[in-house]
Amino acid sequence: MTPDNLSITFAALADPTRRAILARLSSGERSVTELAAPFALSLPAVSKHLKVLERAGLIARRREAQWRPCRLEAGPLKDVADWLEEYRRFWEERFDRLDDYLREIQREEERNDRNRTEEEQHDRNE
Amino acid sequence: MTPDNLSITFAALADPTRRAILARLSSGERSVTELAAPFALSLPAVSKHLKVLERAGLIARRREAQWRPCRLEAGPLKDVADWLEEYRRFWEERFDRLDDYLREIQREEERNDRNRTEEEQHDRNE
Repeated sequence: MTPDNLSITFAALADPTRRAILARLSSGERSVTELAAPFALSLPAVSKHLKVLERAGLIARRREAQWRPCRLEAGPLKDVADWLEEYRRFWEERFDRLDDYLREIQREEERNDRNRTEEEQHDRNE
Repeated sequence: MTPDNLSITFAALADPTRRAILARLSSGERSVTELAAPFALSLPAVSKHLKVLERAGLIARRREAQWRPCRLEAGPLKDVADWLEEYRRFWEERFDRLDDYLREIQREEERNDRNRTEEEQHDRNE
């Protein structure tokens, strides 16, 4: 079975170095040497990561006279975002529930504060 | 190096069967047998996928008397969405550019239509 595009994209993103490479490319085109600089990685190791990203369509490489600059390609990331959209209601619901809970706690504290103030007032009046 | 949470999540999502399991769980809790039914997979094969999803925190399993129902846990998906957010401008820019291009084509066609009508009018007047 050949893996589907979404699986290839997810597999390419399942590595912190590859995600860091994408983050660097988000500020513009970079050469392989420039991409390797911040990592304690050899050029062949970086090239291997770039091949995985290129196969997933997450980067593209231009052929120039002296170098082959890499650039970010956002298409597969949009596909991931579209896939995720179906699940958004789950984490939003979760935060709505947390929100309700925090509001309930706040209401309870306000009630306690009010009761305390009333009790103090009552104590003073006695 | 122990993989980071985001890498574990992406690796868990890099499989169509596991994504199909999540899709089924999005309509509610399911037993392993129920999850296995639509796939041509043995129970042990499904259990293996569930273990990967559970390790990534994408599902949780309750212990009941007779069964251990699985349910979707959206937390790691929200982390993926947060990570993706940084890249949104790239695919939106891309579509903005496409939009500009289509609008430009439309303007050009309207101009051509107008010119043609004027020429026809001119021809008739001669």
